[in-house]
Amino acid sequence: MTESVTEPTAGLAPGSPPGTPAVPQQRPGGDGHEATALLERARAAVDPVMRAAIGSLPGPMRRVALYHFGWERADGTPAAGGAGKAIRPALVLAAASALGGPAARAAAARAAVAVELVHNFTLLHDDVMDRDTTRRHRPTAWTVFGDADAILAGDALQALALRLLAEDTHPAAPAAAARLADCVIELCAGQHSDTAMERRAPDEVTLAETLAMAEAKTGALLGCACAIGALYADAGDADVEALDAFGREAGLAFQLIDDVIGIWGDPRRTGKPAGADLAARKKSLPVVAALTSGTPEAAELAVLYAAPHREEDDLQQITLAVERAGGRDWAQAQAADRMARAMQEVARAVPDPERAGGLLALAEFVTRRST
Amino acid sequence: MTESVTEPTAGLAPGSPPGTPAVPQQRPGGDGHEATALLERARAAVDPVMRAAIGSLPGPMRRVALYHFGWERADGTPAAGGAGKAIRPALVLAAASALGGPAARAAAARAAVAVELVHNFTLLHDDVMDRDTTRRHRPTAWTVFGDADAILAGDALQALALRLLAEDTHPAAPAAAARLADCVIELCAGQHSDTAMERRAPDEVTLAETLAMAEAKTGALLGCACAIGALYADAGDADVEALDAFGREAGLAFQLIDDVIGIWGDPRRTGKPAGADLAARKKSLPVVAALTSGTPEAAELAVLYAAPHREEDDLQQITLAVERAGGRDWAQAQAADRMARAMQEVARAVPDPERAGGLLALAEFVTRRST
Repeated sequence: MTESVTEPTAGLAPGSPPGTPAVPQQRPGGDGHEATALLERARAAVDPVMRAAIGSLPGPMRRVALYHFGWERADGTPAAGGAGKAIRPALVLAAASALGGPAARAAAARAAVAVELVHNFTLLHDDVMDRDTTRRHRPTAWTVFGDADAILAGDALQALALRLLAEDTHPAAPAAAARLADCVIELCAGQHSDTAMERRAPDEVTLAETLAMAEAKTGALLGCACAIGALYADAGDADVEALDAFGREAGLAFQLIDDVIGIWGDPRRTGKPAGADLAARKKSLPVVAALTSGTPEAAELAVLYAAPHREEDDLQQITLAVERAGGRDWAQAQAADRMARAMQEVARAVPDPERAGGLLALAEFVTRRST
Repeated sequence: MTESVTEPTAGLAPGSPPGTPAVPQQRPGGDGHEATALLERARAAVDPVMRAAIGSLPGPMRRVALYHFGWERADGTPAAGGAGKAIRPALVLAAASALGGPAARAAAARAAVAVELVHNFTLLHDDVMDRDTTRRHRPTAWTVFGDADAILAGDALQALALRLLAEDTHPAAPAAAARLADCVIELCAGQHSDTAMERRAPDEVTLAETLAMAEAKTGALLGCACAIGALYADAGDADVEALDAFGREAGLAFQLIDDVIGIWGDPRRTGKPAGADLAARKKSLPVVAALTSGTPEAAELAVLYAAPHREEDDLQQITLAVERAGGRDWAQAQAADRMARAMQEVARAVPDPERAGGLLALAEFVTRRST
């Protein structure tokens, strides 16, 4: 497959070592074609609403947002796009469709846009806080427009998201808005944990808190997307919560795989320099799993990780130590386990595999490790 | 009067020069006692909801918010309070009361909290962007907790505000939420204009754009507060817009007086060092009025303002130049004019002066120049 996937989730480089556990219960035909079609359909449903919403912003915030979404260059000229894969809106629509059919899916378009706006508001702010300079292969907004404008554009996108739901007359809109606002607070808590953990010594961070941080930072919004889709299908509380749990587990699987790719992936596909996470001494899930493995390699890794990054040779040594201490195997097994749980959750709410197909295809898509 | 007003709006220092134009149509008894009572009643209605909402935040954001609101010290021990004057919640409640009586006032408590949360979210973010180190006589949140935690606490307060409205079953809640979200976007635009204008040369800034910036940055949320109160009173569109216009005009009057106090006020009462705005070469309304006055003192002021701040002597010279170029007189006349317009707007929606009394008392309170 050569579809236009450009984000770090694109999978490992060709030629990466085989032998990793397969995603369990992979459905026949789950080769990504279905997911790609779903993502394309989601983009088609969501893009006009999104462009209209962003077009309603005052000039300065609109300009930053259009740049951030890849619709404009820094100089304001139109760009070819590349506003991410729209996984979250696709999950909203797939959940609505799975539980309520085409009518629910159509009704959920604004809510899908709201979720995507929240995602991008957090990206804008996280990049400022983390001083990250590259996103989606392009300079981050704050590097182009400055901190203040990137913060303001993020603030405006959050407001825009909640305005879309406030203006939505669907009976599910207030519950969806409350859920999305709650999710924003959880995302903030996740980002706080992330930055706080990065400031601590490598041996002070536990695997449990790293997983909790990843759930708050990544799982929460994927869960929220699915739950909001269920709300627009007028689903009962149990089904809404099952869909939330599905999204959270799939989100954790995604983060685990993303962290693996961050260490062993191909920079041409990830859009990040090779080993950037290790060079920055990030406490990603495979690294913390390795550090807390109790193996001799864990001790070796702790020493290497305590020293600031100097040379390329370091990175190869660190990569090897994480792998030998079991960080890679753990992350891949954990991702498979999370995916299994995700599928149990979705089966609870949507027993018919035919109807659940879209959700499963998307979950497999975000966590698949080779193309 | 010796009430516990601690913000820069507290009025000029005792002994400041007399002869400034009086607020027009000042009602008998409009000496601030009624406003003080209204503010106290608003605090009593709003504080429990506010504390519960903030108490629901995850630890790190809660801590920053409690510090910012003056309810905790930096070390987490309880503080005596000082969460501002609650002007905005009082305006929500007064507008609801003026148009819908006690029932509407009671129904609008959550909305009043939402407005105050939005105000404080913007303060947290503005202080980060502007690198302001003092607010309400205390170090700003970012100086205590760092940029990232102050940004995250602001993000969480915005979400909390819109969650309160999303969970509010009152029929006015969705329209209030949409209006508040729109207002956030206008506040962001105002803050952008402010920072962009501060980067420009003094002679490149017009009075019209400075007024437009002040309306977006200060007038918009006061207008929104009044409009939301009207919505909870089930008021018609024309009355909602009249209340919005009332709040905007009163907000502009407030900003004009605040800028006057920022130059000629008593630092013991304003909580800011004397002449801080001038030392920072801020393009406040009296300064821009002076710079664009076409007087000989305008040219003198332009030269002084183009040089960076060095000595105390500069400030006295600049203060005198702003005054001689008519900046102070213009600002005070403009404030009186805005207050007159505000009162016309409120009279349109609430012809009975008895019922409009609360709104008028609050407007007079925020713009009154001596205590």
